[in-house]
Amino acid sequence: MDVNQLALEYSAELPMWVLEELVDVPDTFESDEDKMRLVNVLARRNYREGTGGPFAALVIDSTTNELVSAGVNLVLGSGLSSSHAEVVALSLAQTRIGNWDLGADPEHPRELVVNWRPCVQCYGAVMWSGVKRLVVAGDGPELEHLTRFDEGPMVEDWAAQFESRGIEVVQDVLRDEAIEVYREYGESVDSGDVTVYNARGTGPTGD
Amino acid sequence: MDVNQLALEYSAELPMWVLEELVDVPDTFESDEDKMRLVNVLARRNYREGTGGPFAALVIDSTTNELVSAGVNLVLGSGLSSSHAEVVALSLAQTRIGNWDLGADPEHPRELVVNWRPCVQCYGAVMWSGVKRLVVAGDGPELEHLTRFDEGPMVEDWAAQFESRGIEVVQDVLRDEAIEVYREYGESVDSGDVTVYNARGTGPTGD
Repeated sequence: MDVNQLALEYSAELPMWVLEELVDVPDTFESDEDKMRLVNVLARRNYREGTGGPFAALVIDSTTNELVSAGVNLVLGSGLSSSHAEVVALSLAQTRIGNWDLGADPEHPRELVVNWRPCVQCYGAVMWSGVKRLVVAGDGPELEHLTRFDEGPMVEDWAAQFESRGIEVVQDVLRDEAIEVYREYGESVDSGDVTVYNARGTGPTGD
Repeated sequence: MDVNQLALEYSAELPMWVLEELVDVPDTFESDEDKMRLVNVLARRNYREGTGGPFAALVIDSTTNELVSAGVNLVLGSGLSSSHAEVVALSLAQTRIGNWDLGADPEHPRELVVNWRPCVQCYGAVMWSGVKRLVVAGDGPELEHLTRFDEGPMVEDWAAQFESRGIEVVQDVLRDEAIEVYREYGESVDSGDVTVYNARGTGPTGD
């Protein structure tokens, strides 16, 4: 076959406005609430900028509480359906440290902070990334109800499955604030103000 | 914070040996078995080349039976834990067509062919990609048993969940040949001939 038509590389790039949001953030985070506050800021701005859905994630050094990477959902911006906020943050952290295993340095375990329980793709992506701690704003049907994203089929004991693999799960951090972002996003969808990405033809998919 | 240390882009690139394998393949595939035969060739060579685990995937135009993209597991080669064969093939296909939705053209639905039931991450990645058909060599504990990869917690009705989202699932295509690749890989692990990637410290993870 003619191999000249094949794509040989894929990539995703963070939009510059993310750096604008980060430049005034202190060097270290004081609490999980501080981390989630930034996640919610990035998530809200992301859908308004048209880069992707209302989702953001941070990888943070759990020892120093310094930011390792920031990610936002880039499905629309990158054209890659896998570039959810979690995958973007994890991939940028792995690129920065030059290692696919974010748990390789026992002195500096790393954590992921994200504005809802991951969809089924990102559930696995977090599991294989090497992070030792996952902080989420919440879990439950509110996300799918308000945004109409499909999160995919998930096992009931999703958090226990993380814990059994050495990944601590912290839930319900600024839950109401996260829900407010989803509510605003849902209203923008209803009013036709945002582009909905939707690979199944019946509703938007994934976070 | 100082944003100059942050990574702003991530990427993964197909190794050149994949093109060597493709150049002698006919322009169109005659059958699902023909597609899987190529997948098994790429999967076997991938772990021997040291690029990643024994996994490969193809995206194929279901109307013309022409190859859209080829992927192999690039966790070791790219340093990205998400770059499993399915994600690589789907991302390269989306890059080539310039659309995150591989189902956007009803005249040319696309399918993914891969050498086992996807791990939990890639289960979601396939679901959100827009492919309308999934062809797998098999399902069951043989993969985890022979290779010691953790595939993650999966719902029991995984195939029905695909079908309910408009994705046809075809199973058990050249199953024995796929298992033989895993058996060879497991023997190479036992003899210390291959680098095992393992983000959990208790066994290799993901496909």
